[in-house]
Amino acid sequence: MTRTEPAGTALGDDFHLYDTTLRDGAQREGISYSVADKLAVARLLDELGVGFIEGGWPGALPKDTEFFARVAAGELQLKHAALVAFGSTRRAGVAAEEDQQVRALLDSRAPVVTLVAKSDRRHIERALRADVDEACAMVADTVTFLVSEGRRVFLDAEHFFDGYAFDPDTSLRVLDAGATAGADVLVLCDTNGGQLPLGIADTVREVRDRTGFRLGIHCQDDTSCAVANTVAAVQAGVTHVQCTANGYGERAGNADLFAVTGNLVTKLGMEVLPTGGAAELTRVSHALAEIANIAPYSHQAYVGASAFAHKAGLHASAIKVDPLLYNHIDPSSVGNDMRVLVTEMAGRASLELKGRELGVDLAGRPEALTSAVHKVKRLEAEGWSFEAADASLELLLRREVGGEQAEALAVPPFLLESYRVVLDHRADGVVSSEATVKVHVAGQRVIATAEGNGPVHALDAALRQALSPHLSWLDSVELADYKVRILPGHPGTDAVTRVLVETSDGEREWTTVGVHGNIVEASWLALCDALVHKSMRVDSPACV
Amino acid sequence: MTRTEPAGTALGDDFHLYDTTLRDGAQREGISYSVADKLAVARLLDELGVGFIEGGWPGALPKDTEFFARVAAGELQLKHAALVAFGSTRRAGVAAEEDQQVRALLDSRAPVVTLVAKSDRRHIERALRADVDEACAMVADTVTFLVSEGRRVFLDAEHFFDGYAFDPDTSLRVLDAGATAGADVLVLCDTNGGQLPLGIADTVREVRDRTGFRLGIHCQDDTSCAVANTVAAVQAGVTHVQCTANGYGERAGNADLFAVTGNLVTKLGMEVLPTGGAAELTRVSHALAEIANIAPYSHQAYVGASAFAHKAGLHASAIKVDPLLYNHIDPSSVGNDMRVLVTEMAGRASLELKGRELGVDLAGRPEALTSAVHKVKRLEAEGWSFEAADASLELLLRREVGGEQAEALAVPPFLLESYRVVLDHRADGVVSSEATVKVHVAGQRVIATAEGNGPVHALDAALRQALSPHLSWLDSVELADYKVRILPGHPGTDAVTRVLVETSDGEREWTTVGVHGNIVEASWLALCDALVHKSMRVDSPACV
Repeated sequence: MTRTEPAGTALGDDFHLYDTTLRDGAQREGISYSVADKLAVARLLDELGVGFIEGGWPGALPKDTEFFARVAAGELQLKHAALVAFGSTRRAGVAAEEDQQVRALLDSRAPVVTLVAKSDRRHIERALRADVDEACAMVADTVTFLVSEGRRVFLDAEHFFDGYAFDPDTSLRVLDAGATAGADVLVLCDTNGGQLPLGIADTVREVRDRTGFRLGIHCQDDTSCAVANTVAAVQAGVTHVQCTANGYGERAGNADLFAVTGNLVTKLGMEVLPTGGAAELTRVSHALAEIANIAPYSHQAYVGASAFAHKAGLHASAIKVDPLLYNHIDPSSVGNDMRVLVTEMAGRASLELKGRELGVDLAGRPEALTSAVHKVKRLEAEGWSFEAADASLELLLRREVGGEQAEALAVPPFLLESYRVVLDHRADGVVSSEATVKVHVAGQRVIATAEGNGPVHALDAALRQALSPHLSWLDSVELADYKVRILPGHPGTDAVTRVLVETSDGEREWTTVGVHGNIVEASWLALCDALVHKSMRVDSPACV
Repeated sequence: MTRTEPAGTALGDDFHLYDTTLRDGAQREGISYSVADKLAVARLLDELGVGFIEGGWPGALPKDTEFFARVAAGELQLKHAALVAFGSTRRAGVAAEEDQQVRALLDSRAPVVTLVAKSDRRHIERALRADVDEACAMVADTVTFLVSEGRRVFLDAEHFFDGYAFDPDTSLRVLDAGATAGADVLVLCDTNGGQLPLGIADTVREVRDRTGFRLGIHCQDDTSCAVANTVAAVQAGVTHVQCTANGYGERAGNADLFAVTGNLVTKLGMEVLPTGGAAELTRVSHALAEIANIAPYSHQAYVGASAFAHKAGLHASAIKVDPLLYNHIDPSSVGNDMRVLVTEMAGRASLELKGRELGVDLAGRPEALTSAVHKVKRLEAEGWSFEAADASLELLLRREVGGEQAEALAVPPFLLESYRVVLDHRADGVVSSEATVKVHVAGQRVIATAEGNGPVHALDAALRQALSPHLSWLDSVELADYKVRILPGHPGTDAVTRVLVETSDGEREWTTVGVHGNIVEASWLALCDALVHKSMRVDSPACV
């Protein structure tokens, strides 16, 4: 039987960065990878430079079987990583070589196999309904057989920490059965995720001292400590860490590959990725979120869009002088950027810094800066918020600065004359929304009417209908997200509505804001800013 | 000068569970609490039983100043917690008693003040532009003054861990200046969030041994270890932990109050909440997310909707027999539920319990309970959420149970025939909203038209105009709060809008929910439920 040769890692075998996004990560509620998705995930992980990619459980899940077959057929060429098949030890009472599930592991042609084995006596007795001798024999036989077939074998000792606390001898016997039969790494798994770092470190040290085996770690995040537990285990001597992209996994998830890697590289000074790999962490994290169809978590450590975002206020001037005083690392070392948020605490320094980030030069224009600060403060007091609406802020700053920085704004892509929206809840229970807009675009007055599932949707549809014959770029522009917040009025005033609109043209995304007592008008203001912002970036936006 | 007396904690002073959601949590991008929101957050945290609630920075932010003024005026009565004002030490070269910002801390009348002080020599020299002697004098003078005015003072030693690694003597001198002047707790802050648990534990032990001071901990989550770092600090001897609800905070956020509390209670066996408090963690976490208008994170440890959700598959039967083999704790101990994604069992027990709380007896009616569970599950899949909308849930349960428990619902206070809302943005720029309703009330068909500052306001005004001559209780009923969330559609469906309406009659407040593709219809559904709910509680609601 042939098999794919291990690619090995670019960094040798001393330390294993092992990814199980495609198997344990796929346990997350809502994730359902196609085989094409799995190939794309593996390609990205390999580009990043992880050492091992666990591709799935061949024989147990048809999609996983197909994934391994397509890799073996040459659809995926790994540069750095070795591919791993995950599976279980033989069933009780069956020879390993006759167990179909074990054979499927061989048939996958993956050079490495990770076997899961129960190592908590309670699970052996109650879930497996076997005794400890038989459980150890299942481990020993299966490892022996796979090693004899030329596979490298790792052993995932399931529920290890709970089991070791309950009955350490049983747990150590399971490890010993695996190691004696030829398993290379004994992976201690916190399957229920209930551990804390100091306890993990103590247990790892104790097991290492008692056995001398090469140890690995696999943590779930049920105490919100999976990353910390993984790093603590490394500090206590494990040389193999199992993670998933963005911490995807069952329940609270697994140890996040990006945070673990960020910590190992920037805090412990370990070279666990090939040169240039760390600077790819942010990009790969976001790309893997896209494939999983899960919005990237903006507050994720190291790689989140907000991971280095400061509400500047008091510290803005100090940040300007010395950003590293306020960041734990240089954001670019993990491929991320520092952002300064404009808030009601905004001062001159933070607005100038923000302008620089948005390409608007305020440094040499103290009057424009003063007037922009006043305008932002006044608008934020009225309920506007620019911290998430860079595109609206850029328009505001350009208008304040004037001159060539506002040139593109002199000719807006269209002008509104009026709109009307009619909402009906009819006597038969049907609810409908219809909008009519009257606009001036490309020298013409255009009237258009459209329906939508709500007032804003209808207005957006009518506006598009009016403009799209005249603005060639409009078709690529889509509303990507829409957020509404009702702001209670100050004493004596009415509540106002704040709308944030995120717009995409397939390449770029930008966010605009609108505030008004009327939610439809607030939405309209944000929609208009979104289109004006886009038109600044196209050659012939149109002429009114 | 008078001040509010400290409420003290139900658990004595040995250990401080200290919440800074309202100050440091509000630094999170996108959070913008109104004063009413701040009061609601404080009320929930106090119900949960935290010992200290940091309310904000009076004098620096107008909303925070107003918050403390309204608390001092009696709008908030704390049962467990002491209220804390946050602020800075005096400016360089100014006496503490003449520093306006320090005076604002006194004026807030909060019984406890937490002062932030730089404890990293680089920050003292480069950001503060002072020398270490002056920095220590600023600490000592300000603490001395506030203590002499009867305040309890905690000192937040900013950038402590980075500073201690760079120049331990400076950092210790700052602590010493605070302690000598009378600060009760010296809080070691990992302001840039770059620490790992084993390092935190070592530093805490070393500082404790060198100083003997009472120490606290404040961690940011930039290494994804804030919870672990906080717990490790407790294990190393701190007796004061600063957290924020759901980990809200700048950049990657702060240590999550709920995960930290979950760990301290269930892993370390510490009684850090009053009896029954731990079982409220899930409810309070979700309610605080609603107030922040941030979708609850379903994979959050302990309190997330998926924290105990199993893709049952292989382990289904074992989980059913012995769930604790597969959960790190009993989910009900933190007010959460296990969900096995293939069964319908989940929810029955909690819905029955919830019904009891709302006065609807489901215990003896298994069929009604089954049907209510199905209905709630179906509606929640469509985007409804009853977590914060008890009044709507009560109506739903009564309708399912029928019989005498639904008697009051048999005669609704009014029936809708139709409504129409017209929104105009006129050519002169004026924006107007007008609504017409046709309803049946007290045996009559009534048509009424009214204007409002937006579509929902106009609709509410028209409905009141139609009903108030016939429903004597309507005048006391007011819309107290209104929240909107746009929910992304499932694949192949449009987005829907969820509206939460809080209504008050001056004595009681109740919350209802409406979900629809059209925001106005969603609001209508919630408004109607609010009135039906009120009418159940009056003697003669009206007859249609």
